[in-house]
Amino acid sequence: MPTFIDVHDGFVGVTQEQLAEAHQADLDIEASEGVHFEKAWLDPESGKVFCLSSGPSREAVMRIHERAGHATDQVYEVPVQV
Amino acid sequence: MPTFIDVHDGFVGVTQEQLAEAHQADLDIEASEGVHFEKAWLDPESGKVFCLSSGPSREAVMRIHERAGHATDQVYEVPVQV
Repeated sequence: MPTFIDVHDGFVGVTQEQLAEAHQADLDIEASEGVHFEKAWLDPESGKVFCLSSGPSREAVMRIHERAGHATDQVYEVPVQV
Repeated sequence: MPTFIDVHDGFVGVTQEQLAEAHQADLDIEASEGVHFEKAWLDPESGKVFCLSSGPSREAVMRIHERAGHATDQVYEVPVQV
């Protein structure tokens, strides 16, 4: 199953609780696309969120994020890892 | 110790071996700044690399990457994680 990293902008000042809520919104529906969101990291100063996921395609990851209310087109398949 | 994610551009077509070499160049000198690079993910199509690290400061992470030959100013402290 391919691995993806995606990037969101605009999460300036977002708290741990709010990030957990946003992540839970993904988890609640991810199975419908065969996606799993493993981890998310937030920089509340710049408002950047980075998500690590696995799933069948980039488009499947995008659809889950869009349906969960935080769409992004910055989704990268990362087959090379160290 | 704070956690950081940084982003590099321009790694289009880079192989597993080349990424491992670039990562090793960081590992070889990271202790001099108290930084540790835990993981790197590459999308060879877009040329994006994402690195996960810990260290004393954003600037310390930037200095290691610069000395290792792959400078970036896209270094984000990510204190909020799920």
